[in-house]
Amino acid sequence: MIRVIILGFGNVGQHLFRAFSKSKEIEVIQIYNRSNIEFPEGLQTNFTTDIQDVKEAEIYIISVPDDSIKYISESIPAFNKLVVHTSGSVDIKDLSPQNWKGVFYPLQTFSKNSEVDFSEIPICIEAERIEDIVLLTKLGETISNKVQEISSVERAKLHLSAVFVNNFVNYLYQVGSELLSENEMNFDLLKPLIKETARKIEHLNPENAQTGPAKRNDLKTIENHLHLLKDSPYQKLYAEMTEAILRVNDKGD
Amino acid sequence: MIRVIILGFGNVGQHLFRAFSKSKEIEVIQIYNRSNIEFPEGLQTNFTTDIQDVKEAEIYIISVPDDSIKYISESIPAFNKLVVHTSGSVDIKDLSPQNWKGVFYPLQTFSKNSEVDFSEIPICIEAERIEDIVLLTKLGETISNKVQEISSVERAKLHLSAVFVNNFVNYLYQVGSELLSENEMNFDLLKPLIKETARKIEHLNPENAQTGPAKRNDLKTIENHLHLLKDSPYQKLYAEMTEAILRVNDKGD
Repeated sequence: MIRVIILGFGNVGQHLFRAFSKSKEIEVIQIYNRSNIEFPEGLQTNFTTDIQDVKEAEIYIISVPDDSIKYISESIPAFNKLVVHTSGSVDIKDLSPQNWKGVFYPLQTFSKNSEVDFSEIPICIEAERIEDIVLLTKLGETISNKVQEISSVERAKLHLSAVFVNNFVNYLYQVGSELLSENEMNFDLLKPLIKETARKIEHLNPENAQTGPAKRNDLKTIENHLHLLKDSPYQKLYAEMTEAILRVNDKGD
Repeated sequence: MIRVIILGFGNVGQHLFRAFSKSKEIEVIQIYNRSNIEFPEGLQTNFTTDIQDVKEAEIYIISVPDDSIKYISESIPAFNKLVVHTSGSVDIKDLSPQNWKGVFYPLQTFSKNSEVDFSEIPICIEAERIEDIVLLTKLGETISNKVQEISSVERAKLHLSAVFVNNFVNYLYQVGSELLSENEMNFDLLKPLIKETARKIEHLNPENAQTGPAKRNDLKTIENHLHLLKDSPYQKLYAEMTEAILRVNDKGD
């Protein structure tokens, strides 16, 4: 049984708590959050808003906003324990040296009211000591099949790539949705396409999966689209993304 | 039984042929293609490379590249029949007036070696005559639950939106993949994230689903990312997408 304390009960903290609660090998003995929380239905454990009340545990998991990680790691009333953060972009060195440092980064997007299947989520771990790598691997494997050791330098680049395929992609969904609503069409029309676009790259690499006017060098359609967007804030984005795909074509030829 | 001829056996023609072949209400009596084709395993029908040999049918479905649609519609040896194209961006008026005009546009991305479930795909139909709308609705409903009448003007805008959520999104997948491979990490790491990003907008609107440094106004992480990309062709794209998301934040405040 691994005794864990979760510090910070935002999206990541809550999702980890739910996932750990399903495992018989992990006990979340306490949750700390600076303000009061609501427990997910059917789940409960000791809770405190006072960092000085934080108990003794094997692993302390800090899942607070990036800029508070250092402060929280310095405030935990524990020494020579394993303290990990869950951030994609914060270096392991930012953690306080009063405890052994580690990282437990689940590479996923967590939203309220959207349950995720942890078993498929890559958990990127890092630690200073071999025994902590072993412990974090064990912790990760209770909830995921994809635990992987990744250094802080690699993790920063992984997180950067994740911004492209998640946040920027989601922004494009938003643009699509707005273009439709301007023309009184329902975003639902695009959902099967969005789903299939994501599904295709499970077995095709993105370069081979590409289709559309830019891929086909269909300059007439591109011109029509730019014309349709002539008063739109999205015309520039269309032009740039199209040029980027045309450049990929040229490289491939 | 609706007797159909498919003209053009590229991705769309092949996927339609497969889908129609599963329906007892449709008979694809012939396929025309300008060059020889290979039939999908287990499927067969009359085939010709000579447009003059094209038979008589109730519906002619033209699924050739956009810039050949007009030419093929003028070359079919038929009169006063229903001739439809399957393109997102070609106006119904581009079809030859020698037959009744229509559109049968499945809003999906079709790739070789990637079977799709037609039942979920919106089929956007258009026709000059009420009876052809009825016929195309019947044809569409044999393969899909989402047949919808959409005008050429609306379809152009729908297709434009589709480019954003499909081709441009796929380009971002490619960027993510390249950034990882430059650092010897496997694109598989990002696949669960990509899947979840697409899944989330099935029940959240994209604006509410947004996460990440730009959404959080996390200027420190954004700066780190721009620094990581300092010699990369993708730095500009990162900056622009980030600014666009920051502008959305401002609007929402």
